[in-house]
Amino acid sequence: MVLNKHPFPKMPSISGVRLSAISAGIKARKTLDLVLIELPVNTTVSGVFTRNLFSAAPVTVCKKHLEQTANSRYLLINSGNANACTGVDGMAAALRCSEELASHMGVRVNQVLPFSTGVIGERLPIEKICQSISPLKKGLDEQHWDLAAKGMMTTDTCPKGASRTVLIEGNPLIINGIAKGAGMIKPDMATMLAYVVTNANVSVDLLKSVLREVCSQSFNRITIDGDTSTNDSVILAATGESPIAFRDRNDPHYPVFKAAITEVFRTLAQAIVRDGEGATKFVTITVEGGDTHQQCKAVAYSIAQSPLVKTALFASDPNWGRIVAAIGHANTDNLDVAKIKVFLDEVLIVENGGCAPNYREHEGQRVMSQSEIHIRVHLGCGDISETLWTTDLSYDYIKINAEYRT
Amino acid sequence: MVLNKHPFPKMPSISGVRLSAISAGIKARKTLDLVLIELPVNTTVSGVFTRNLFSAAPVTVCKKHLEQTANSRYLLINSGNANACTGVDGMAAALRCSEELASHMGVRVNQVLPFSTGVIGERLPIEKICQSISPLKKGLDEQHWDLAAKGMMTTDTCPKGASRTVLIEGNPLIINGIAKGAGMIKPDMATMLAYVVTNANVSVDLLKSVLREVCSQSFNRITIDGDTSTNDSVILAATGESPIAFRDRNDPHYPVFKAAITEVFRTLAQAIVRDGEGATKFVTITVEGGDTHQQCKAVAYSIAQSPLVKTALFASDPNWGRIVAAIGHANTDNLDVAKIKVFLDEVLIVENGGCAPNYREHEGQRVMSQSEIHIRVHLGCGDISETLWTTDLSYDYIKINAEYRT
Repeated sequence: MVLNKHPFPKMPSISGVRLSAISAGIKARKTLDLVLIELPVNTTVSGVFTRNLFSAAPVTVCKKHLEQTANSRYLLINSGNANACTGVDGMAAALRCSEELASHMGVRVNQVLPFSTGVIGERLPIEKICQSISPLKKGLDEQHWDLAAKGMMTTDTCPKGASRTVLIEGNPLIINGIAKGAGMIKPDMATMLAYVVTNANVSVDLLKSVLREVCSQSFNRITIDGDTSTNDSVILAATGESPIAFRDRNDPHYPVFKAAITEVFRTLAQAIVRDGEGATKFVTITVEGGDTHQQCKAVAYSIAQSPLVKTALFASDPNWGRIVAAIGHANTDNLDVAKIKVFLDEVLIVENGGCAPNYREHEGQRVMSQSEIHIRVHLGCGDISETLWTTDLSYDYIKINAEYRT
Repeated sequence: MVLNKHPFPKMPSISGVRLSAISAGIKARKTLDLVLIELPVNTTVSGVFTRNLFSAAPVTVCKKHLEQTANSRYLLINSGNANACTGVDGMAAALRCSEELASHMGVRVNQVLPFSTGVIGERLPIEKICQSISPLKKGLDEQHWDLAAKGMMTTDTCPKGASRTVLIEGNPLIINGIAKGAGMIKPDMATMLAYVVTNANVSVDLLKSVLREVCSQSFNRITIDGDTSTNDSVILAATGESPIAFRDRNDPHYPVFKAAITEVFRTLAQAIVRDGEGATKFVTITVEGGDTHQQCKAVAYSIAQSPLVKTALFASDPNWGRIVAAIGHANTDNLDVAKIKVFLDEVLIVENGGCAPNYREHEGQRVMSQSEIHIRVHLGCGDISETLWTTDLSYDYIKINAEYRT
């Protein structure tokens, strides 16, 4: 089920950025499962990766390569196999594929970044990938953003893309992004891959800091099932092909750049939630009036990850008691229950430790019946706020995850 | 669905402990929903309660009454309505019912402990409860343990009881317990009520300390859906009607007493898991070889609460990658992935950061197809261990919780 699916957007080409995708036979069904993204010479690249201790072999390789150079030239992405928990063999496999691609393209191996998503613990089919490099290269095209987005899908039901173009002093600043998601989505990302490319010229330090900042307002604020994958990776690349350049945050156009990039990241992150496994509702949770970010996040995640709240959302049941119980067990200090207010959209449902006197169940029912719901909690103890996005928990979530390997 | 349901055990009577249950019309369907337990004069009582900030009115009243006296005489338990998030009216309602019972029985109001379980946020029907006190009193009987267990059920599919009798110097030491559970079960208890009574004579300090200790090895080590309720309460009462007395831990028979009481608590806690909403598997998770209890618990709960692990358990799918991913995002320091071993029952599935070389899928499949599964993780960094019990996540969990109020 896809919730308010947005059609894949028209993506303008970015000079020198070429993409291709083929079916290499990694997935059982013959669908696209291998993607190549070519970046022009002198592109600056930065990445953030899963914090799962069992991070996958390609994550380890990416981190190492990015430590050695920010001038990556090729991103090689396979779906159908995560190459995670594959020990030393998995490391060798990720490196082997990177080497094959590097030698084929005449670049250094550390200019190749490998990514994998799919089943954990199975051997990566190196031969199938190496044999596919030649046809992949042939297919490279500046128009193939949608193809690349399709090629990295696993349980995703649709390709996900976002694009923004802003004119800066007459020059188009383009930001294109594609992502895949679906299950295992939580705080610090999930079997979630995202690639965002801009034609601006951005210093590597600024690129790193803007990436961390926008991730914390997008991919790190979504949760579907509370699980964090072994393979999460987000890459931000700046080709520098446009005359628009950003050295630091003091650049007069930096706020515009940051706003546009934040929009692309949020759109991709929300697209992942909308296509969450089995999702029938798109839920925004805002916790405001808090004392610290930590406190607001704890309360927001406690609500977002409560299976009882999520099943009530699925049932369109304004069972606000479950929301309140989730707030109450968020393990945060400094909360005064009597000061907490809870809203469903604009409807005040809880205050003074109980049901709001003017609340009428049919009003809660009306909001819960919507496909998009905003749960807003006011903690009454400060002026910090945090927002995150999540889904309900449906029969289809169980179906998808119980049958994933069968 | 009830998993390996144990029949309600034969419970010996405990002199002076009388129980009754009736249908007071609190639940929509005319089933038992109001329970009274009478304790003899001079009984010593101790309780532990939910840490949810939005703790229900009866929890607040119980705590206050127990601060004033440990000589409770009556436990009044209703199902069908949690009297939680009901603000000042809820407090007044819990007190009003306690007062009515106290005056009817000729005891002080602080010798009455009220408990509620059911839907959150609805007004407690005080009149129905007060009108039921007379018939409840008439029904009091030393044999009615099963009736009391039935009267407090909500989404439980069976009454839960446990009993142990040990002969100490020729005198029978009896421990009887009843509990209700089902959903919203996590760490520090859940919409979980348990009442355990012994005929021993136990000092109030010892009673308090033994209660905390055995809870931490039973009710605080179970999780079904990670939610913690507003109403969890566990009561341990010692009537002192038997000549067996325990003043402190140095009593020579104390270890036998503690072992028997631990067995009763664990049996009740596991019965709650076995009857977990939609459960089709009973899963024991042991994390051993750890550095600290905190670390072992974090890893165990990360596995137990992963929806991906739980759906794999439901599907009988030995998708060990999900177990490994859950270990990896447990947010514990000091873990060396290469030293971690994972077993399904006796089958070694993971070592050296990957699949164990001798592991064969059909062996994992065999274990996962069982209705009782032991997931054992060895962290390889110390000698601490923790065990907890949980269930899978099935279609029926969604069904039960999506339709709870409809």
